[in-house]
Amino acid sequence: MADDLRGRGLDVVEVREPGGTPIGEQIRALLLDAHRREMAARAEMLLFAASRAQLVAEVIAPALAAGRCVVCDRYVDASLAYQGVGRGLGIDVVRSVNQVATGGLVPDLTLLLDIDVEIGLERARAETGRAALAHAGGPSPRPGALGTGSGDRMEQEFLAFHRRVREGFLTIAKNEPQRITVIDARGSVTAVQGAIRQVVAQLLRGREGPGGGEGSR
Amino acid sequence: MADDLRGRGLDVVEVREPGGTPIGEQIRALLLDAHRREMAARAEMLLFAASRAQLVAEVIAPALAAGRCVVCDRYVDASLAYQGVGRGLGIDVVRSVNQVATGGLVPDLTLLLDIDVEIGLERARAETGRAALAHAGGPSPRPGALGTGSGDRMEQEFLAFHRRVREGFLTIAKNEPQRITVIDARGSVTAVQGAIRQVVAQLLRGREGPGGGEGSR
Repeated sequence: MADDLRGRGLDVVEVREPGGTPIGEQIRALLLDAHRREMAARAEMLLFAASRAQLVAEVIAPALAAGRCVVCDRYVDASLAYQGVGRGLGIDVVRSVNQVATGGLVPDLTLLLDIDVEIGLERARAETGRAALAHAGGPSPRPGALGTGSGDRMEQEFLAFHRRVREGFLTIAKNEPQRITVIDARGSVTAVQGAIRQVVAQLLRGREGPGGGEGSR
Repeated sequence: MADDLRGRGLDVVEVREPGGTPIGEQIRALLLDAHRREMAARAEMLLFAASRAQLVAEVIAPALAAGRCVVCDRYVDASLAYQGVGRGLGIDVVRSVNQVATGGLVPDLTLLLDIDVEIGLERARAETGRAALAHAGGPSPRPGALGTGSGDRMEQEFLAFHRRVREGFLTIAKNEPQRITVIDARGSVTAVQGAIRQVVAQLLRGREGPGGGEGSR
């Protein structure tokens, strides 16, 4: 997606969450640490929000102010789905904290790559195990459960958690159809890329004024 | 104060902020880290809130549920004064985040040990420099400014920050006179201890029902 945007002449900044700044990467390490097993849901949610606040202040807001285009791997919606729905804190509570963390900064476009939980987890397993899942933006309900074959009950809890998260994402998308586009992620990388390119092209066409060029904000 | 409460037959748990749990101590280390110079005010505030959420969930709430008495060195008011007023985020914004962090848990009694900024900083300097100030609950506007003789302008900014924080604490105390008692901290340790004992005794007398004993919640 970032390459596609660059090909259209935009100046693109790529960032990821949690992390993306020296302070954010330290928070990320803390979230992935051994102590996470005993981490309270509220503390976890606030740590994601802290990393996000630093990313917005240090990277995203300055980039936007300079007329650049920011592509962010995960943002507020991930907290709404993982901590708000998955961990049961409630979407409104998580949204209010993230309103403070981001100063109300909302993306122009959000892409939700949707897939069955089982297939998604299988793909994550095929990569680098737990680290890959963590990069996928949220904690497992039981760290270490992924790929360690830790029993049927834990596996069922793990799947139930990720099904709640998926439903959370889809609910959020349904409530904000103008901003969020759901992409069917079952296909090949090429097929998914094609779908994303189409959505991006549509957004940029909508942006072109009578005499304006692509990429103007 | 904790010893005084124990002398009155209460089962006392002492905790400090930020920290007080393994996760909280990691957050504390992050707050004291070298990167702090570039930390956004909102990120800092959210990290304090994350440490607090973990402390409430892991230590304070279970202790209260077991009928124990908790003495906490700093709590929500410190964030309202330091981040809300000192750093200018606004008391209401910081309060709303901390409402989520603590699940609305408010102390029965809060003691504000008040003193002139210059004398307070002099006392902190007489202890262990920067670490002592950090323990005093909030970041300096310029880490390292304390005790390093870093120029008149920085010293003036530093004093102005702490004057704002003090005014913030006093405003919060004025708005919640039922919960917060301001203690004049200019006197000797013995004098301050005596004033605290008096306030605690008064609170516990108010708690005694017709047939109830001290320490019942």
